[in-house]
Amino acid sequence: MALRIFGDSISGNCLKVKWVADFLRIPYVWTETSVVNAQTRTPQFLTLNPAGQVPLIILEDGRPLAQSNAIMLHLADGSALIPADAYERARMLEWLFWEQYSHEPYVAVARFQMRYMGKTRQEIGERIYERGAAALKRMDDALAGGGFLVGDAASLADVALVAYTRVAHEGGFDLSAYPAVKAWVARVETALGIV
Amino acid sequence: MALRIFGDSISGNCLKVKWVADFLRIPYVWTETSVVNAQTRTPQFLTLNPAGQVPLIILEDGRPLAQSNAIMLHLADGSALIPADAYERARMLEWLFWEQYSHEPYVAVARFQMRYMGKTRQEIGERIYERGAAALKRMDDALAGGGFLVGDAASLADVALVAYTRVAHEGGFDLSAYPAVKAWVARVETALGIV
Repeated sequence: MALRIFGDSISGNCLKVKWVADFLRIPYVWTETSVVNAQTRTPQFLTLNPAGQVPLIILEDGRPLAQSNAIMLHLADGSALIPADAYERARMLEWLFWEQYSHEPYVAVARFQMRYMGKTRQEIGERIYERGAAALKRMDDALAGGGFLVGDAASLADVALVAYTRVAHEGGFDLSAYPAVKAWVARVETALGIV
Repeated sequence: MALRIFGDSISGNCLKVKWVADFLRIPYVWTETSVVNAQTRTPQFLTLNPAGQVPLIILEDGRPLAQSNAIMLHLADGSALIPADAYERARMLEWLFWEQYSHEPYVAVARFQMRYMGKTRQEIGERIYERGAAALKRMDDALAGGGFLVGDAASLADVALVAYTRVAHEGGFDLSAYPAVKAWVARVETALGIV
């Protein structure tokens, strides 16, 4: 059995997994699974992932694995997307955890609410925009010298953070206020072959 | 220079790092850094961690590392707290990311708001309690058979999740509704020597 990915194509978290598999030429079968249509909440799906979230992968041997960043780390083990140096690897992990705690809950949530739930900025609330702006500002500072988030090449830190940053405008964020981030998005898309 | 840990003793995220260092007998110097008193927002601290968060460690060679789970993974590299099996390691990472996204923002935030900011359950809001209860329920199901979250021994998954689960009652959660979790907390405390 080939690797199976349950994912929602509108979800940056799911696209992370697709991009890594594509970049590393890992064959997979994609099963489109809609969050909005509650396909992650069916009894069958909850058996595979009790957290009721995509992405979820089923390994060749039938065992499941969830959480976008954990999946990427597993698929990319031993590849160039994970720095060989222990400190750089630790910094990459620092960005991965920061992404899920301090970036995704604001930048991704604003986009989901605005683009897919039809909410206005006022309905979404200024707290989300303040925190999302703080996250983008932090990235802009870190990327001021060009390059990638960790080391000299694209790593999983860039994959994780580009996923929702590149579509931040769909949630009402203006990336032109973060020129280093904007240039980095283009670099990462090129490096990973993301279209 | 010994390892230096900047941490707030009331923060479960910071205690995770302390417990791992203590368990692995890694010498360190602890610098108490109060979140409530904004000691994580001073210009000096922001130079070390632009995210303005504890825990933060300064490695022996002077390089900084943030994010509790990334720090634990770095300190515990090669130890028994990280499963040797690739799939078990991946599942451990799944729990670490889930903890920061689906547990900490509810269980830890309710505790911080109630115990340290003096808010009532009503002021904290039912959404926090619903999501926190869902997280504790998921853990209770996963731990119904006893043991630890991954494999046969305590791993970083248990360290990460016990940190705020053991003090969930300080945020208004009643752990007696989750008997498997309650028994697991005692097991993890014993295994790690947490008092």
